[in-house]
Amino acid sequence: MTRRNKTKGETDMNDYSRGGFTLPGEAGYEKLTLEMAEKWGADVIRDSDGTKLSDEITRAGYRIYSTICIIREHNAFAQLHPDAQQQSFLCSKPLIASSDTLEIRPMEGYFAEQFEVNDSPEAMEYWQVWDRTANTLVSPEKWSYSAGAVTVEGCEPFHRYSVSFLAWRVWEEINMYNHTTNHWTSEHLRQLDPRHPLAWEYLKKWLKDWCESNPQTDVVRLTSLFYNFVWIFGDDMRLRSRFVDWASYDFTVSPAALKAFEAEYGYALTAEDFINKGLLQATHRPPTKAKKDYMDFIQRFVAEKAKELVDIIHAYGKQAYVFYDDSWVGMEPCGKYFPSIGFDGLIKCVFSGFECRLCARAKVETHELRFHPYLFPVGLGGLPTFSEGGRPEKDALSYWMHVRRALARQTVQRIGLGGYLHLTIGQDKFNDLIADMAREFRHIKALHEEGEPAALPIRVAVMHYWGPLRSWTLSGHFHETDNNVLIHINEALSGHPVDVSFISFDDVKQGALKDVDVLINAGREGDAWSGGDVWKDSGLVSEITRFVYEGGSLIGAGEPSAVQGGDTLFALSHVFGVDMDKGQYACHTPWTYETQPSPFIFAEEAIGKTEGIRVTSPDTLVLLEKDSVPALTLNCFGKGRAIYMGGFTYSPEAANMLLEMLKYLRGVEGTAAGKADDPLVECAWFPKNRVLLVMNNAETPVKTRVSCPAGSEEITLEPFETRFMEL
Amino acid sequence: MTRRNKTKGETDMNDYSRGGFTLPGEAGYEKLTLEMAEKWGADVIRDSDGTKLSDEITRAGYRIYSTICIIREHNAFAQLHPDAQQQSFLCSKPLIASSDTLEIRPMEGYFAEQFEVNDSPEAMEYWQVWDRTANTLVSPEKWSYSAGAVTVEGCEPFHRYSVSFLAWRVWEEINMYNHTTNHWTSEHLRQLDPRHPLAWEYLKKWLKDWCESNPQTDVVRLTSLFYNFVWIFGDDMRLRSRFVDWASYDFTVSPAALKAFEAEYGYALTAEDFINKGLLQATHRPPTKAKKDYMDFIQRFVAEKAKELVDIIHAYGKQAYVFYDDSWVGMEPCGKYFPSIGFDGLIKCVFSGFECRLCARAKVETHELRFHPYLFPVGLGGLPTFSEGGRPEKDALSYWMHVRRALARQTVQRIGLGGYLHLTIGQDKFNDLIADMAREFRHIKALHEEGEPAALPIRVAVMHYWGPLRSWTLSGHFHETDNNVLIHINEALSGHPVDVSFISFDDVKQGALKDVDVLINAGREGDAWSGGDVWKDSGLVSEITRFVYEGGSLIGAGEPSAVQGGDTLFALSHVFGVDMDKGQYACHTPWTYETQPSPFIFAEEAIGKTEGIRVTSPDTLVLLEKDSVPALTLNCFGKGRAIYMGGFTYSPEAANMLLEMLKYLRGVEGTAAGKADDPLVECAWFPKNRVLLVMNNAETPVKTRVSCPAGSEEITLEPFETRFMEL
Repeated sequence: MTRRNKTKGETDMNDYSRGGFTLPGEAGYEKLTLEMAEKWGADVIRDSDGTKLSDEITRAGYRIYSTICIIREHNAFAQLHPDAQQQSFLCSKPLIASSDTLEIRPMEGYFAEQFEVNDSPEAMEYWQVWDRTANTLVSPEKWSYSAGAVTVEGCEPFHRYSVSFLAWRVWEEINMYNHTTNHWTSEHLRQLDPRHPLAWEYLKKWLKDWCESNPQTDVVRLTSLFYNFVWIFGDDMRLRSRFVDWASYDFTVSPAALKAFEAEYGYALTAEDFINKGLLQATHRPPTKAKKDYMDFIQRFVAEKAKELVDIIHAYGKQAYVFYDDSWVGMEPCGKYFPSIGFDGLIKCVFSGFECRLCARAKVETHELRFHPYLFPVGLGGLPTFSEGGRPEKDALSYWMHVRRALARQTVQRIGLGGYLHLTIGQDKFNDLIADMAREFRHIKALHEEGEPAALPIRVAVMHYWGPLRSWTLSGHFHETDNNVLIHINEALSGHPVDVSFISFDDVKQGALKDVDVLINAGREGDAWSGGDVWKDSGLVSEITRFVYEGGSLIGAGEPSAVQGGDTLFALSHVFGVDMDKGQYACHTPWTYETQPSPFIFAEEAIGKTEGIRVTSPDTLVLLEKDSVPALTLNCFGKGRAIYMGGFTYSPEAANMLLEMLKYLRGVEGTAAGKADDPLVECAWFPKNRVLLVMNNAETPVKTRVSCPAGSEEITLEPFETRFMEL
Repeated sequence: MTRRNKTKGETDMNDYSRGGFTLPGEAGYEKLTLEMAEKWGADVIRDSDGTKLSDEITRAGYRIYSTICIIREHNAFAQLHPDAQQQSFLCSKPLIASSDTLEIRPMEGYFAEQFEVNDSPEAMEYWQVWDRTANTLVSPEKWSYSAGAVTVEGCEPFHRYSVSFLAWRVWEEINMYNHTTNHWTSEHLRQLDPRHPLAWEYLKKWLKDWCESNPQTDVVRLTSLFYNFVWIFGDDMRLRSRFVDWASYDFTVSPAALKAFEAEYGYALTAEDFINKGLLQATHRPPTKAKKDYMDFIQRFVAEKAKELVDIIHAYGKQAYVFYDDSWVGMEPCGKYFPSIGFDGLIKCVFSGFECRLCARAKVETHELRFHPYLFPVGLGGLPTFSEGGRPEKDALSYWMHVRRALARQTVQRIGLGGYLHLTIGQDKFNDLIADMAREFRHIKALHEEGEPAALPIRVAVMHYWGPLRSWTLSGHFHETDNNVLIHINEALSGHPVDVSFISFDDVKQGALKDVDVLINAGREGDAWSGGDVWKDSGLVSEITRFVYEGGSLIGAGEPSAVQGGDTLFALSHVFGVDMDKGQYACHTPWTYETQPSPFIFAEEAIGKTEGIRVTSPDTLVLLEKDSVPALTLNCFGKGRAIYMGGFTYSPEAANMLLEMLKYLRGVEGTAAGKADDPLVECAWFPKNRVLLVMNNAETPVKTRVSCPAGSEEITLEPFETRFMEL
């Protein structure tokens, strides 16, 4: 980001030099800590995983955050009470029965430092052996377990059998990851299950003791709650990380949880409800009814227990903030029960705009973003950041380009960093950049405090299986889910002057479309984002048909509304005017077409191709084809319109295209929300302050006309510049 | 093809100058006819669609074939008996009900010169109206038909409705195609349904009269029987050809057929048995039980009626040959009932090797190939052949390269041409080439007459839904089905020295694998070639598992054994060691691998990529990857082996690779069947004659060592050369 001198019509950036900034302090670097706090305008100092704060820091007049991971670092207790540890269902590799007896060693292939078989009587009740060839459960009389092996008798020849079993998780997964990645030699940290009564009493006592012995702490920063996202390691380095789902509930399970569920819901869950033929139930797939019930059950449990912790913290006059990552399962900020916990703040680490919006919309007093890169020698992907070859200022700027536009739409109260502060020594470019970003953040926040930015009269609803529970996010960061078209769309939406909501298919059936102008469905056949079997519901299909027919707009990307078994693959094919051939159209010729000029600006590179797409109506307009496959189409349907995109890859150009598309669909023109003529420049108009916030997303200078209700001006922006124009 | 002088060890080609050749004669070109008959060594002269033979020709001492299309050219009768015409079920375009009443004009979108609504009372019994949104049949009380429109009352709002109806086919489809393509102005030819009693009596009488008035005819060449393959035209030029299935039975239908079926089978077929939600039931898709019953029913009908015609022809002392194209539905040469008809000959037009094998294996005395190009100004694809810009000798040679290698494995008795002979005037290159091809054909045939060529001890079975009924072919010519991987494999197999059979999944369950060494499954999820839902049958899966485990070999291409709903997408994933991710593996990491050297020679260009393929076992060997997707893999399973290919595109190199693969899988080495070191050269060893037939598939000279049990020699072949080496 290139800085500029103040010019006429600009606010003095120095007005925004302090506050809303959390600095990671570091004992042994007291002088640096206070210097950097001054430079970045920090008002809060925190500790981090691996750093401590000294008295010199905690007494320097800053508010103090102290990080705790409540279920971890209790190895002594865990040793004494191994049955208080957390568990998971696992499924053995299926083996072929080449005779009528088969021996299966369930743990084969799993990482023995992460898992240990739970063969306690109460766990064995839940073990199952499946004939995966016939998809039938093997009667318990036909198998037995002894010394690490299940022996199955009376096998069907050449059928495949697998064992579903419970395993203790004997290594907390974040510690396991850091440990194995960095070749640490320290003790493996274990984790306690708050459902275990003794463990829960112990944890509460521990927290009370902690609060008493940490009077300097203003805010307890919980990192995070109880149950980690699911991360299953294998013993073979060619398949070290077997399964990673950033939003799965499989690590919450235990015989106690299953019994409590059964008592409450009146039906029992089995191993297969979790194992699902060995495929598990990833967040990207629509859940079963049982899994959905179970998730609600866990969410309530997590909220209840978390509230007890928050109450303890409050009783000591401290505030409780929660960091939304790692052991966050069950505490989705947009979930039904999150507000009941009573957190004072939510901290989200962000790479992307959608994460900023996700944080900002949570019902909590203080929203804080922890920026990347983390002050660590290497980043998550293993590439250098604060070490030889790293360019931390480049990384930080690229994330800021995503976050800035989201902040322009909806602000948060605070930003900050984490990690080892001493790594900033000598990183002047990074340090200057953070100071600039912090000032810009404060300025944007100040604008929001005066009044909301102007928005266009366009209400967008993203529709998928999970609805509000998974607002903005799919499950994890952008780069963990970027093979899903929807995350690209969410990222684009995060900076647009439109109203965005996330609704489920059930919501649609219950009338949610009355508050929607543009409905979006984007995913792949059978996934939770496209919807899968929900599209067999004629009520859903006819409601969306009605919506568009009567004037609503629909955007589909990838394989929207796709399900097999109907007369079309896309249940909304008649609305889109395209369908996808997965072989069912054998011998049917598609409509021929000529590519038509587009009524809106589009970015060809941003649009992808879905193999098999074909035009199903002579009225469908193909605006772009790729390798002879329609990639962008427009269909008028009744009084409404539908746009189909084969794919959508986020970029500033892609984001601009999506906004142009939304405006075209709703017939919205003009500069009410601010507008730049250059597609790489975005604006936000704050009418109360009469400030036009102009953001250059390009790495080059851009000369463009910017316009808003107060006027229009030709300006030249530096690369990546943020400009606050008072008009 | 470059000709060479006779060299040592070669047989004199002039020994093979006459016989086994059918020439299309042409009245008005009597001199040319006899000259060309001499040049090409013809022993038979035929007429063609559009040509006549004069007495000067028919009395010149050649056998005479006369072409008749039995159900066509009876317009006067059809005018008198419009209910004797053929029919089809059609399905209207589904329309949205935006109020509770909906009007649907069933014929909208169909070509009115091909179809007319059949609203007779007996036809109306079979009409149906469907709610395609809810997938429910609309009660007949809720709809009525009048003046070309169906009115549906009490519609569900925003559901889609379609009408399934019977239509007369008032234009014979081959005539319609030629007519509309060439802008003819002649009368539209109609076609009669032999199931209509009056029509059938009329047709038999007509044939008797014809035989009586054509004493010069030795062979009645039926082109072909009763029911055309399905070809549905639309009224919009952007969708002129709506549906083409070269093997569908939909054009055999009529109320009379449906009533007869019901009487025999004890259950009634409905429109939906044919319409199938509007998708029809293409040959590429697995049929329903009802459709399969119906096919058998029609096959028996066609065979019975055809036998009556053949008996008439025989009664007049003539022979009956049938041309296997156009109106051939129900007379599949490898079908159960074909031999009962009593044809004396089967004529197949060929572009490819697999068509040669298809013809050669039929149980009939005389097998004849009609070569391409047809003597016509333009070819099927509309490109010039015998007109400005055409290179007919180039086309003929390229087809011969496919047919020659198949003939080396299994011969036929005759070859020939068709069309307007006068178009050969001035085409010296073409005329010389045909003379050469004819001599080579006769030489190959003579070798076969002495004794079969040596074969390798490898029994290959291609397994698909249709089994023997669709041996070698899928449905139509190569270029009509070339987006199916299996036709490429069949074409490669057609020239290999191995035993090839075609078996159904039922055959496998009934023990067919006892006679198989290498089993092949190649297709796409849900199609008739891969198999679709048959893979939910655990008996099928375990039988193939046993087969490979005990030492059998398996080759899969594309999406073999693919079906959704199991723990793997490929039901044989455990045998292949790979599976395909259609989203079900979300969050599951695939095994990492390093590409391994291949134990057999493969042709990288011939192998395709199937998106989503992943390795599922650490033991799977990836021999080739494309864009990071495993494209060729090898897995040892029990005592057997399995090879997976993402795709397979026919070329001489691809064919060579497939043979190398088969030999590797079965551990077969050596030169027992003849062998060339160069992958573009193929051999066939005829031990009885001690002749090594050597075929250069390359368009360049090739120097290579050829070997057979009688010895080994280094030779240089001209481009495309055929060499007969006496050893």
